[in-house]
Amino acid sequence: MTNYNLDALNDMSTQDFTAAIGDVFEKSPWIVESVAGQRPFKSLAALYDTLAAAVSAAPDQLSLDLIRAHPDLAGKAARSGTLTPDSTAEQISAGLHRLSETEYASFHRFNESYKAKFGFPFIVCVRRHTKGSILRAFETRLDHDADTERKTAIEEILRIAALRLDQRVSAPDKLPLNGQLSTHVLDTVSGKPAQGVTITLLELSAEGDHRTVATVVTNADGRTDAPLIADRPIPFGQYELRFEIGAYFARTGAAKAEPAFLDVVPIRFGVADPEGHYHVPLLASPWSYTTYRGS
Amino acid sequence: MTNYNLDALNDMSTQDFTAAIGDVFEKSPWIVESVAGQRPFKSLAALYDTLAAAVSAAPDQLSLDLIRAHPDLAGKAARSGTLTPDSTAEQISAGLHRLSETEYASFHRFNESYKAKFGFPFIVCVRRHTKGSILRAFETRLDHDADTERKTAIEEILRIAALRLDQRVSAPDKLPLNGQLSTHVLDTVSGKPAQGVTITLLELSAEGDHRTVATVVTNADGRTDAPLIADRPIPFGQYELRFEIGAYFARTGAAKAEPAFLDVVPIRFGVADPEGHYHVPLLASPWSYTTYRGS
Amino acid sequence: MTNYNLDALNDMSTQDFTAAIGDVFEKSPWIVESVAGQRPFKSLAALYDTLAAAVSAAPDQLSLDLIRAHPDLAGKAARSGTLTPDSTAEQISAGLHRLSETEYASFHRFNESYKAKFGFPFIVCVRRHTKGSILRAFETRLDHDADTERKTAIEEILRIAALRLDQRVSAPDKLPLNGQLSTHVLDTVSGKPAQGVTITLLELSAEGDHRTVATVVTNADGRTDAPLIADRPIPFGQYELRFEIGAYFARTGAAKAEPAFLDVVPIRFGVADPEGHYHVPLLASPWSYTTYRGS
Amino acid sequence: MTNYNLDALNDMSTQDFTAAIGDVFEKSPWIVESVAGQRPFKSLAALYDTLAAAVSAAPDQLSLDLIRAHPDLAGKAARSGTLTPDSTAEQISAGLHRLSETEYASFHRFNESYKAKFGFPFIVCVRRHTKGSILRAFETRLDHDADTERKTAIEEILRIAALRLDQRVSAPDKLPLNGQLSTHVLDTVSGKPAQGVTITLLELSAEGDHRTVATVVTNADGRTDAPLIADRPIPFGQYELRFEIGAYFARTGAAKAEPAFLDVVPIRFGVADPEGHYHVPLLASPWSYTTYRGS
Repeated sequence: MTNYNLDALNDMSTQDFTAAIGDVFEKSPWIVESVAGQRPFKSLAALYDTLAAAVSAAPDQLSLDLIRAHPDLAGKAARSGTLTPDSTAEQISAGLHRLSETEYASFHRFNESYKAKFGFPFIVCVRRHTKGSILRAFETRLDHDADTERKTAIEEILRIAALRLDQRVSAPDKLPLNGQLSTHVLDTVSGKPAQGVTITLLELSAEGDHRTVATVVTNADGRTDAPLIADRPIPFGQYELRFEIGAYFARTGAAKAEPAFLDVVPIRFGVADPEGHYHVPLLASPWSYTTYRGS
Repeated sequence: MTNYNLDALNDMSTQDFTAAIGDVFEKSPWIVESVAGQRPFKSLAALYDTLAAAVSAAPDQLSLDLIRAHPDLAGKAARSGTLTPDSTAEQISAGLHRLSETEYASFHRFNESYKAKFGFPFIVCVRRHTKGSILRAFETRLDHDADTERKTAIEEILRIAALRLDQRVSAPDKLPLNGQLSTHVLDTVSGKPAQGVTITLLELSAEGDHRTVATVVTNADGRTDAPLIADRPIPFGQYELRFEIGAYFARTGAAKAEPAFLDVVPIRFGVADPEGHYHVPLLASPWSYTTYRGS
Repeated sequence: MTNYNLDALNDMSTQDFTAAIGDVFEKSPWIVESVAGQRPFKSLAALYDTLAAAVSAAPDQLSLDLIRAHPDLAGKAARSGTLTPDSTAEQISAGLHRLSETEYASFHRFNESYKAKFGFPFIVCVRRHTKGSILRAFETRLDHDADTERKTAIEEILRIAALRLDQRVSAPDKLPLNGQLSTHVLDTVSGKPAQGVTITLLELSAEGDHRTVATVVTNADGRTDAPLIADRPIPFGQYELRFEIGAYFARTGAAKAEPAFLDVVPIRFGVADPEGHYHVPLLASPWSYTTYRGS
Repeated sequence: MTNYNLDALNDMSTQDFTAAIGDVFEKSPWIVESVAGQRPFKSLAALYDTLAAAVSAAPDQLSLDLIRAHPDLAGKAARSGTLTPDSTAEQISAGLHRLSETEYASFHRFNESYKAKFGFPFIVCVRRHTKGSILRAFETRLDHDADTERKTAIEEILRIAALRLDQRVSAPDKLPLNGQLSTHVLDTVSGKPAQGVTITLLELSAEGDHRTVATVVTNADGRTDAPLIADRPIPFGQYELRFEIGAYFARTGAAKAEPAFLDVVPIRFGVADPEGHYHVPLLASPWSYTTYRGS
């Protein structure tokens, strides 16, 4: 997708402006078009806030049309390849393109129940989710009443739009959309940062599967050169950091047992705040360790 | 197998004494017979020490015969069911009765290489081992010279005999054969022992498999009513304790995130001292924990 | 004071029984005398419970007489040496025999205010207190109403009686009167108990003074041969444990800096439950440590 | 003292240049004068390196003259107020202006012994020291041979000069002279930085005295707005951080005991590397805490 500079967007004709970013709302370019007259926007935040206000001010029927413009999650459109490019990328981010037949059936059943009860499709900002957390959200939200779900659908649509805007528009400011996951390793035998520790980040599924997200090595400051996750939300879910401190202490000469008492240290944790900062350090000797959620 | 009281063993005829416990040395009852005249033994330790002295004093050829009386590990005798009852139980303890074809082939290859180099079978006290640690011992010991391996074989035979004696003879004293694995859980939010925490102990293999050894629940003192392992060596290997503290903190009301930051806390550790005491506690809040090898 | 065996007390005449332990209630032997007919008591707990029941059943005037039989804390009787032997020992335990003139004046003022408001002396079981906690109790209790304070006075009298009984009578059972303070030290560099660590326990005052309660050295298990406090309540107050781990790590060779990063580690804590078990361990490397209230 | 810009120094006459910063070497302006011809210096580091090279290249007699140009520590010149302004400020920084008579006598005795043995005064860069660490250095260095001490004296003179240069000259670069002491506080009950915790930093003396260096309060990130020490060396010595977490947990509602188990948490540590970064955090619940030297 083309990336646009905010200044350029401010200078375009209404028609070009709508063509450029109209699709941040699924098949509903009228929202972008309706704010074209309020240009120039001096920041991405100002553009987003104006779009959100337009959505909130929309009459009931238009609002419902906007909701209904969204496809089913992992539904027929996804299978037949007729999703919008944005929806395709989003559903891939949560792994919805590689469901088992059983999982596909679950999604189908939930989609149908939801539409039967509320009269519109289940909408969730999938970039903030894993497969497992979407299924849990289905269960929870099916119990709600229609007003709550219309409100929730609009909130999720605004989250989707914000993430699409963030990818599509270059501007001096950033929307507060991104989480961060970082770590550091301290060697409590030497009182120094532990350098050269290999760390693997895994995403875990409820079924016991895991998927490697990143493998990094600590630098002289016991940190990683870049955060393990940044510039995107951290999807709701379960994660595991694996610290190879056995190999580290074998190198420093501090490990005295064979096999070592501590070899690969797994730290398993859940993410409940996709936009949060999760700093998950390890303070370790060959015989003990401490971890915590830091900031 | 029949269990004998030490006093009864002291009062038997030499013939009955030999029949009773002669098989603590594999197919070599002459060792037990040779110490019958030194009865009465006032403790199990005295009986064991006298047997060990008899083995050490044996002339070279008898010592070699003793070594050669042992079967291959996971060898033909095991497959065809012609092992002695003791050997059968021991090989089962390390899981040698359920090898894959590939593993069986590895054991076969190692056995043959070892016998070809040293002229006697590879002997190891399998109750102190896991499948993985036996394979590592094979590799290490194949590099040794013959004198070292004859010495090692006798040491392992004495370990085997000691464990068999311990199971076969009731006496007021115990041989120092047993390791211990214990844990406790402290809730650092309330400053109290964490009661009702489910803990699972797994044995891990190098291939990533795991086998559940025990599942326990902490009592009012944050401990388990009995150690997770006691009354036997803790086999060399990799283990994992899984503490279900997410469920615990959900009950106490201390967990505030959904999903919880900490749910199941895995502590993975290696055992290098099968007769050692491993106390592996967890000091936890919903957001942090510390573990260590205690005593 | 003479110590009596419970069996002997059960066999005495009523007169001897009353003479023996009548003074567990200050200048009020009638309470002990009133339960003599209910002998034999099969346990110390049974004797105590019967005495407590007699106190509770006493008519209002007798109950008030019992309260009024008690001396002022740090009052004239204490200064002139005319306290009962029990009261003398008790007031010494909390350091009330070495007050400064200012402190003496505070106690005097509080005693007078209390008696003026309630018509009876301020009673507290001083063995559960430090000077500071008594002064805080004075302030708190002066705000109560008369009913609350009569109830509190009787509760404190029963605590005093229980501690006196415990010292005076030998029996198979113990009353649940005693707190316990213990510690252990773990060396996280070696994964072993830290042996030979000198530990000092201090009682701190609000004014910044401190008084050494005990100095001990850890044994091979990283523990002290006996708890730092046992067989008595731990008085409400502030304490500090000082662990000389700098000297320990200098001996093990683990300390690499001069001066060491950690030399004497002070752990300062408050006691709010005199009958509680306080286990306050130290898990330490030369560069880090963890402490917690364990059990 | 006047502060000079590096550019200005580069443009001055030799005479002005020497007048401006000649006194960075005690009563020895010839060193600065000797490098004037090598201007312009493009950085403070280049100026310092050139000065250091000039000192190293000086013939033996000049080098000895330089050493002898220094006053006694806490000696007669200090008492009579005839020190150079730099020396006065430096000796004040280590508290040498408020010695007791006993301490003054110790310094006097050490100064005399040192001069008697080596023929020149004891020189130490006092800004990197406390009173106690100077006395320890006296003892250690008195045992050295003359060559070692001449070498040490020159090293210390270069350290003194570097710190004087750093204060006197403004330049784009900084000399690596400064240590840093920082902290942060994490609340392990909430998994969040602890805001509003008052922290006091004390410098401790061997005699048990202490001097308050700084009192700060943690911000929303659990850190202090500025490091506790920065822009200067951290003198060799013993320090204590006092964290008022009892008051913090009373505000959050997490403390449940009265008095609290943890009120003021003291962390006592030694500094062996005045130019090092000492990050000393506290991870705390109302019942437990962990500290470590971080980076």
